[in-house]
Order: sequence, then structure tokens, then C-alpha cells
Amino acid sequence: MITRLPGSIPTRSRGVICDNLVFTVAVAPDKVPSFYQQTRQALAAIDASLAEAGIDKSRILTAIVYIADMAQKPEMNRAWDEWVDRANPPMRACLGVALEGNDLVEIVVTAAK
Amino acid sequence: MITRLPGSIPTRSRGVICDNLVFTVAVAPDKVPSFYQQTRQALAAIDASLAEAGIDKSRILTAIVYIADMAQKPEMNRAWDEWVDRANPPMRACLGVALEGNDLVEIVVTAAK
Amino acid sequence: MITRLPGSIPTRSRGVICDNLVFTVAVAPDKVPSFYQQTRQALAAIDASLAEAGIDKSRILTAIVYIADMAQKPEMNRAWDEWVDRANPPMRACLGVALEGNDLVEIVVTAAK
Repeated sequence: MITRLPGSIPTRSRGVICDNLVFTVAVAPDKVPSFYQQTRQALAAIDASLAEAGIDKSRILTAIVYIADMAQKPEMNRAWDEWVDRANPPMRACLGVALEGNDLVEIVVTAAK
Repeated sequence: MITRLPGSIPTRSRGVICDNLVFTVAVAPDKVPSFYQQTRQALAAIDASLAEAGIDKSRILTAIVYIADMAQKPEMNRAWDEWVDRANPPMRACLGVALEGNDLVEIVVTAAK
Repeated sequence: MITRLPGSIPTRSRGVICDNLVFTVAVAPDKVPSFYQQTRQALAAIDASLAEAGIDKSRILTAIVYIADMAQKPEMNRAWDEWVDRANPPMRACLGVALEGNDLVEIVVTAAK
């Protein structure tokens, strides 16, 4: 059974639930010029999608965090460390890549129901 | 039960099927200098691997699209939007990275049997 | 049932086991200036995490290999080809990205118990 969470663009889903696995992606809705603020926003969007799937961040298995400037990783980390469930930390990788427009952070999560 | 789809290089598989999950990767076989054409080719290769696994694009859960030039994302999107199953859109992320040689697009897909 | 393998940083796990899936990430512990050596080290760290999960490299489904310089991909490949289980090659993608500090290679693996 596959359930798809619609996003803002009809050719993509914001999240997908398949059996006990949940996949979701987020960027910051507001393109403020701060890695810390964009990470906070993206993580809040992840929280919202997980809630729609009936779970929360304690069930995240992996997070791949893409950032537009590796020099700003400490600012991303600051938001991550404030947000993360320290009893249930995900496996995480952080990569510096090119993102679209004024996106500074994009986060892809795999979680379990 | 793990089934592996052999690729052109013996130390890697083109796809792997494990229980009800299917993982596959594709680049364009012909390195034409067009993001649109390479995306079309890579998506056709994804279709072929999914068919070998006994499924089709309606079963794709996630797609991570790596492109060699973020400025060309609209050309990748054009091919994606023509190809995607709009009744079953995958979760998707698109990242600008360095790819090998004349590869312009590389796509990694997770799908469900 | 989710089991987490603690890493060196409390807000992230080195690996996560959920039902029959195992997710793990590794970089080289020693930041030697060699893509070959760092890849060998990262792959050895993957081996160690898989062993903790009760499996070995024959059970790897996918590997995403992030490298800090695409021109050095042959050196990463050399280490990969020496290490891989040729009877059970993973699906693999290799992307050139920015990594932190003196990391040259980072590897994210999905495997099956």
C-alpha cells in the first residue's frame, strides 16, 4: 500500500508512505538568507510531514542534509542539535551541493511507522 | 531474498531487489550535450530496470536526481514532467553535483513491488 | 523495532537497524590526503558497522559514495574494486560534492539483514 502526500508541484510528492517506511523531503518555505533559519524551517516541515504519516522525529532512521555552502555547516548543525531527538538520533550525512534558487538547505528523511 | 540486476561494470549492480523494495540507478547511455535528452534516456533506463523487477514507474517511492549544472534544472524538469505518472508522483530531490565525464544527469530510484 | 548504533556525536547515529534494513554511514577516521586510503578506511568502517548489525558486505543493497573531487574517482574505484563482494555487488552511485574539513570520501549504505 503506497500513500502519497501531495506537495506544491503536481509531478512530485512531498512524502510517500509504503508499508512501514516513510520518505519525505523538505526545504524552507521562506528563503531567508540564514542557514540556521532555513534549517529550522525545513525541519519543521519534516515534522509536519511525519505527523501526517502518523509518526514523529523519534522514528527517523536516516537524514541526508544537503547544504549550499559547506562553510555554513555549523549553522545547520546548530538548528539540527536543537531539534533532534537525542534519545533517537538518526543516521545523518551532510553534503555540500548546488540547490535551486535561494534554497540553502534541503533535507531527505527515511523514517519508520 | 536479494536479487541483483547486473550492470556494465562487474563490481556494481544496476539494480537490487530485496523483499518488496527495488533500488535502481541510471545515467544516459549516450552522452549527448542536452540535459533534456540525457534525462529522457536515464528515465527510459529506469523504466527498463523497473520492468525487469516486474513493476513500473507507478511504484516509484523516491527519486534523487543529480544534475551537473543547476542552471539546467528546467530542462531536466521538462523531461521529468513529460515522463512522470501524475497519478503516482514520487518524492523527489534534485541536487547539483559533479558527475563523471560527460554525464549530465544521474537518477537513483527506490520503488516498491 | 529500531536499533541505533551510537557514533562519536550524540545527535547522530553511525547506523540504524529497522526490521530487516540496515542503514550506515562512514568517513575515514584518519584524514590522510589520499582518496584511495580514505576510501579503504571508510569501507572498513562500513564493514565494522555491518558486523555490529550482524551482517557483512554481501548484504549491501545500495551505496552512495560522495567524493570531494571527481577527478579522483579512479582512486576511490580502486579501493572499491579491491573491497567489493563481486558475487554480490551493490547498486552504487558516486557524486562529487563538498565534504567537511579534510574528508575526501563519505559513504552511505543500505543493507538487509
